[in-house]
Amino acid sequence: MYGRYTQDLGTFAKDEAARLRLQEGDTPRPRRPSELLEYTQGRCAPCRVCALQCQRFLISKVGEDWVFLILLGLVMALVSWAMDFAIATCLQAQKWMYGGLDTNVLLQYMAWVTYPTVLITFSAGFTQILAPQAVGSGIPEMKTILRGVVLKEYLTLKTFVAKVIGLTCALGSGMPLGKEGPFVHIASMCAALLSRFLSLFGGFYENEARNIEMLAAACAVGVGCCFAAPIGGVLFSIEVTSTFFAVRNYWRGFFAATFSAFIFRVLAVWNKDEETITALFKTRFRLDFPFDLQELPAFAVIGIASGFGGALFVYLNRKIVQFMRRQKTINRFLMKKRLLFPALVTLIISTLTFPPGFGQFMAGQLTQKDTLVTLFDNQTWAKQGISNEFEYLGILEAWHHPRSNVFITLVVFILMKFWMSALATTIPVPCGAFMPVFVIGAAFGRLVGESMAAWFPDGIHTDSNIYRIVPGGYAVVGAAALSGAVTHTVSTAVIVFELTGQISHILPVMIAVILANAVAQSLQPSLYDSIIRIKKLPYLPELGWGHHEKYNVRVEDIMVRDIRYVTLNCKYRDLQQVLHSTKMKNLPLVESAESMILLGSIERTQVGALLSNQLSPQRRLLTLRQKVLSEDGHRLSDSSIRFQISTETSSGTPARPALRKPLKPALKRVPSSPADSPPAGSTDHTGIALKSLFCANAATEPTEAQGTAYHKAKRVRISIVEEMILGDKMTPAEILEWEEQQLDQLVDFSSAKIDPAPFQLVEHTSLHKTHTIFSLLGLDHAFVTSIGRLVGMVSLKELRKAIEGSLTGKGVKVRPPLASFRDSTTSTTEADTTALRQLWNRHQHHHMPREAGPGGDDDDDTPK
Amino acid sequence: MYGRYTQDLGTFAKDEAARLRLQEGDTPRPRRPSELLEYTQGRCAPCRVCALQCQRFLISKVGEDWVFLILLGLVMALVSWAMDFAIATCLQAQKWMYGGLDTNVLLQYMAWVTYPTVLITFSAGFTQILAPQAVGSGIPEMKTILRGVVLKEYLTLKTFVAKVIGLTCALGSGMPLGKEGPFVHIASMCAALLSRFLSLFGGFYENEARNIEMLAAACAVGVGCCFAAPIGGVLFSIEVTSTFFAVRNYWRGFFAATFSAFIFRVLAVWNKDEETITALFKTRFRLDFPFDLQELPAFAVIGIASGFGGALFVYLNRKIVQFMRRQKTINRFLMKKRLLFPALVTLIISTLTFPPGFGQFMAGQLTQKDTLVTLFDNQTWAKQGISNEFEYLGILEAWHHPRSNVFITLVVFILMKFWMSALATTIPVPCGAFMPVFVIGAAFGRLVGESMAAWFPDGIHTDSNIYRIVPGGYAVVGAAALSGAVTHTVSTAVIVFELTGQISHILPVMIAVILANAVAQSLQPSLYDSIIRIKKLPYLPELGWGHHEKYNVRVEDIMVRDIRYVTLNCKYRDLQQVLHSTKMKNLPLVESAESMILLGSIERTQVGALLSNQLSPQRRLLTLRQKVLSEDGHRLSDSSIRFQISTETSSGTPARPALRKPLKPALKRVPSSPADSPPAGSTDHTGIALKSLFCANAATEPTEAQGTAYHKAKRVRISIVEEMILGDKMTPAEILEWEEQQLDQLVDFSSAKIDPAPFQLVEHTSLHKTHTIFSLLGLDHAFVTSIGRLVGMVSLKELRKAIEGSLTGKGVKVRPPLASFRDSTTSTTEADTTALRQLWNRHQHHHMPREAGPGGDDDDDTPK
Repeated sequence: MYGRYTQDLGTFAKDEAARLRLQEGDTPRPRRPSELLEYTQGRCAPCRVCALQCQRFLISKVGEDWVFLILLGLVMALVSWAMDFAIATCLQAQKWMYGGLDTNVLLQYMAWVTYPTVLITFSAGFTQILAPQAVGSGIPEMKTILRGVVLKEYLTLKTFVAKVIGLTCALGSGMPLGKEGPFVHIASMCAALLSRFLSLFGGFYENEARNIEMLAAACAVGVGCCFAAPIGGVLFSIEVTSTFFAVRNYWRGFFAATFSAFIFRVLAVWNKDEETITALFKTRFRLDFPFDLQELPAFAVIGIASGFGGALFVYLNRKIVQFMRRQKTINRFLMKKRLLFPALVTLIISTLTFPPGFGQFMAGQLTQKDTLVTLFDNQTWAKQGISNEFEYLGILEAWHHPRSNVFITLVVFILMKFWMSALATTIPVPCGAFMPVFVIGAAFGRLVGESMAAWFPDGIHTDSNIYRIVPGGYAVVGAAALSGAVTHTVSTAVIVFELTGQISHILPVMIAVILANAVAQSLQPSLYDSIIRIKKLPYLPELGWGHHEKYNVRVEDIMVRDIRYVTLNCKYRDLQQVLHSTKMKNLPLVESAESMILLGSIERTQVGALLSNQLSPQRRLLTLRQKVLSEDGHRLSDSSIRFQISTETSSGTPARPALRKPLKPALKRVPSSPADSPPAGSTDHTGIALKSLFCANAATEPTEAQGTAYHKAKRVRISIVEEMILGDKMTPAEILEWEEQQLDQLVDFSSAKIDPAPFQLVEHTSLHKTHTIFSLLGLDHAFVTSIGRLVGMVSLKELRKAIEGSLTGKGVKVRPPLASFRDSTTSTTEADTTALRQLWNRHQHHHMPREAGPGGDDDDDTPK
Repeated sequence: MYGRYTQDLGTFAKDEAARLRLQEGDTPRPRRPSELLEYTQGRCAPCRVCALQCQRFLISKVGEDWVFLILLGLVMALVSWAMDFAIATCLQAQKWMYGGLDTNVLLQYMAWVTYPTVLITFSAGFTQILAPQAVGSGIPEMKTILRGVVLKEYLTLKTFVAKVIGLTCALGSGMPLGKEGPFVHIASMCAALLSRFLSLFGGFYENEARNIEMLAAACAVGVGCCFAAPIGGVLFSIEVTSTFFAVRNYWRGFFAATFSAFIFRVLAVWNKDEETITALFKTRFRLDFPFDLQELPAFAVIGIASGFGGALFVYLNRKIVQFMRRQKTINRFLMKKRLLFPALVTLIISTLTFPPGFGQFMAGQLTQKDTLVTLFDNQTWAKQGISNEFEYLGILEAWHHPRSNVFITLVVFILMKFWMSALATTIPVPCGAFMPVFVIGAAFGRLVGESMAAWFPDGIHTDSNIYRIVPGGYAVVGAAALSGAVTHTVSTAVIVFELTGQISHILPVMIAVILANAVAQSLQPSLYDSIIRIKKLPYLPELGWGHHEKYNVRVEDIMVRDIRYVTLNCKYRDLQQVLHSTKMKNLPLVESAESMILLGSIERTQVGALLSNQLSPQRRLLTLRQKVLSEDGHRLSDSSIRFQISTETSSGTPARPALRKPLKPALKRVPSSPADSPPAGSTDHTGIALKSLFCANAATEPTEAQGTAYHKAKRVRISIVEEMILGDKMTPAEILEWEEQQLDQLVDFSSAKIDPAPFQLVEHTSLHKTHTIFSLLGLDHAFVTSIGRLVGMVSLKELRKAIEGSLTGKGVKVRPPLASFRDSTTSTTEADTTALRQLWNRHQHHHMPREAGPGGDDDDDTPK
């Protein structure tokens, strides 16, 4: 499935299909003279010809990358703007309701609580019904998809609709939820849909590699148009979704994200929200002296504390999910009433934020956006002497409580929001955690900043000029640090610069973000990796920070040595045995059990198909027919026609016009397959049969047959039931005997799809390099060879185990069990030697008979 | 050479060496009790023990990445700051001289011209003598090195010294040269040296993969501390040096670059240059309304014009170099008087910038830094009505000429600086082109901005508020766009934000940079790629923008089919023939000419070594000795000792303490090598010989034997000349006969280093995928196999040809010659079939004698 490299043939098949389609697309050209002829009879013929050419030119341009990226950017900007508008309206409505009912606190409370509960419940229900894949952030899934794994239904229109509407409702409720993760997902779906739509015009959109490039760009667009932060968007999307990034895709992300952010902000200008294009949360800190050198320790403290906070958030979030899952009674209850959990959580959170209630101590009436605006405020909230009495104006008033001071409000806000956000992001609605974390970080930074301002009322600087401390700058630093710690990214620094429109605090932000990352990465995985683990998505963990020991662990220490294989000269019975004894999805094909020279890899389903084909009633029927034919010669043509039909059924792709080749080999097999002993047949026939193997390789998609080969075989059985009734005269005993006989035949690999160059590693390859290669090429497994000889196999599972094993025993070098034998014994070396000697001897034996000495024995004595 | 993947064994050998060293490093621990015993006899024993433990702890920490990165950042910040200081002093000295001599224009002119000429000539001469590798930017070379190519002498201390001193002098001369490219190189050298220095404490610094990671981080540090732009530095270094970027290395770059930029700016604060940490070229544009939406077309125009300008710059630069090379008379003259060209160029440029002369029309007296400061100025230079008469104060006066206006000055500046910079960057001194281009871009932006300001004196906005146009903002946009166009990077946008400390113009900058990139990339390669081409460095070109056709070209269309190979059972004569008939650096090792099953790859030098070893006088001597020995038994021990010594000479690495293993196999070969017929020897001996093959593989570095095998063989011959005189009694005719006899022997591969898993591709792999894999894994060549059978080979050369061929025929799908045959013929398929049939038949023949039919003939009829 994932294993982009081993899918060479699949890609090729798609290329082929695209090429054929392209050629078909080109075929109208020869028709052109006649069309022109038709038009030239009219009066404005030149105009029409010109229009036609323009149209063709435009259609040919549709295939270009930049057209796609502009369209993607435009659509996403519109989606983002429309959603923002809808969310703002929803929040406005809640405020209006709450404001209108200020005569009765109970009514006010009811309105305050019911509104979000209804919205969240609707969102959860809607998503659940339409597309459960839309739940959650989407970044973990995109990370997996970009690694080459195909996740079903994750990029469909249904999911798109569910995610957009679900997210709008969820955010409109005013819960502490984010829109950034879902936007990455939405943008990716948008790209996938757009790609499918544009493929109606040209054939270029069919390519797998190109789709992945476009998805990577779409992720950047998602972040970019969500925050109007093109650069930060590109970097953030790279950091959270990629392991290895192709620099040649860089411009795609920038181009699309910039265009999208531009349109998004232009829409705001056109809507008269803004006078011109500026940042989303514009700050106005002073430029001359943004911060003092002596304030840097405070920024470092923010960074380190954010690191711990971020790790705690990830831990808390995971524990909540695990608690829900483990507690069977809760779990059973929740499974029954799926909408109760979201409603309950919303109820609790909105009750606590009720402004006349507990909300007054935590600025409960502010929306997320207002909160951020106030936190990034330029003024200092704490009192600074008498002359400087600060008036809380406008929305700032929310932070001011007559009976307490701003520090208490901030602390309460941080503590409450922390667990609320961790809890809210577990609700099964489309939602992200970035924005809530960002707000908490900003509040924490503000807290530190206000404390500093209170401590040093006239600034730290001792020179003539008085530069007061700017707590808003601390808020910016805190926001970047905490969101960076939770997501394990450095690019949140860039995002805050773009969000605030000021870069003056670059060094404090960078220092805090790096420290926060250092602390968080050593304590917990990132939030997205944590979700990947919870959801058990097939993903390879990263190598940790201090991964020296990975250079010393080698493939031979982690590989599976005892693997099942298929030999070129095996019998069907061996295939059956192999299928029963292993669950590997890809089986190695070796020359012979003695030489073990790796020739290729064959899919498990292919082996199954081979086997079921050999034992198919259809073949049995044919054998029977042949017998009859030897008696009665005139029915030959009839039978061959019927055979052709049934083969078409089993190939499973009658709808694809471009795939004509797969049929050819099956047809060509007609003369050779009825023969009971293929080697006894003339060489010419075998040649055709084998040729067909390569034709089949060349033009059949490997995915289409996956997992369904057995079902197809079944379908074939059913489809020829009437024929069986007509022709099958065998008794069960006869059938059994026939099957036994069939199983003893040598396998004819001509109809199987073989990957002729599966990925190979050497035993001495280090774990570090193996990890790199697996991530680079998106491999699922690799065979370990030694001088062409198969000695083992490494799959994602082994690699994951090896990496996680090493990670837990940090500092101490954890050697996998097999590693300890390496220094003392030379077992592998001996095995290698034996193998090469065998080859050597065999060849001397075969081709140099004059040199055949006592060492040139035939080599049946090797066990493997 | 390059082929990181195929160097597995090399890496492994290094790992092994590092591990052994590590174990040696660990061995002192058991000694500890005795040490403690020693100390406990003293009085302050606990202190000493504690100190000892601290010391050990620190030494163990030295191996950690972050220590390395901090050290690197610190050193580079100091280097950068010291160089800046030295450069500023140099420029100050020139200004002082020029100012002091203002009584006599001629003297003034002499001083103005002589000073830079002397500095540049010294720089060129110094660099030429000490390390010619230090010449130029260094980014192209770093790009090549990071791809895995080993460039000699590029990362040594000598080059470091040459580059630092040469660059200081070159920049001190006031020529239009940059320091950013050289800084990337300096940082990389610094990392390499630091790595070597730190490896004295721990063994971790020996790993190749880790070194490349560190070099990538160093590139980021280079840009980061040069501009005090950590984020831009990381991104820029990624864009210009990497093809595929490992996201896990991201933090390294950020960490080191941030630390470096921080120290760099802190040094400025401590030196009282600045009050606190701010941007290098701080701007003070207004925040509320940085630009109008309607100004965006002007920004787009800047972008497009910069794109053309950037392409022109690259073209001009390349043409100047090519002109110098092609004109034979010029070339010969320049080769003789190497320092004349730099001196001449400096003379011309400094004459033209002489302030009282032509320099008055192009702000000639301003240094690069002053120019930038004035161009980013907040005020509008063009006159805006009477009430707003602008006074040129301070250094701004340079732009004001009483008899002309600022537009003419700017135009002259741009035109003159353009060719001056293109010319100056071809001088053979350490210099970059980024900064000059940046300045030209800023001037161009300023020109457009001033024009806009003159056109719309009260701004474009029609509302009540008057927002004047800010020409400084245009200068920022222009600088980013032109430098982006020349280097083909988008991250120049980030660099300008960090340089100016303002991000308010983010959208105009992004739009202009993207447009500039789009135009420039479609016209010319980037400056660095252009230099790579000029210098013919082994690098793979990028796939172009619209590379649809690459999905349809396949490996089989571009691969070399007629390749030489080595078979497992070949004779030495065959080796000789192969060596004469091909120049391939890596030869495939196949099972036999009939099966063509690829077993591994063997280096050309290894084959040469095998051959020269077989024919060495030393062996002849030994044969002779053996003959004598059979007569006279007592000289055996004497001969074996001498053999050991001469083997040590031929292994070529007596100085490396870790490499003890290579000697073992040679010693073990003693009993088996004198035998004339190895297969006739007992199997036990062959086993040892073959085992030694793997030992040699495991512990010898692949690079050490390269290109020198023949020379070593020669050296061996010389070293044993006296022995020959003593013992060689053969006549030349006898020698010839003996050699002929030796050539007929079967090759013993036991002493050769074989790469058991060379990279394999399938015939149907698309060009796009091949390019990806080659860039990802840094491959030099790959074998094309089909079911384990070697069918061809693709090397960088073929790939480069294929890509460049397709690029020239843009839009039209250029099919390589062989592609046209694909659709009509099935030749390859047939060849495949034959091969598989052979395998098939052979196995049936060998292991299933009962089934041996008429098709199971022995397969000597195949041609290849």
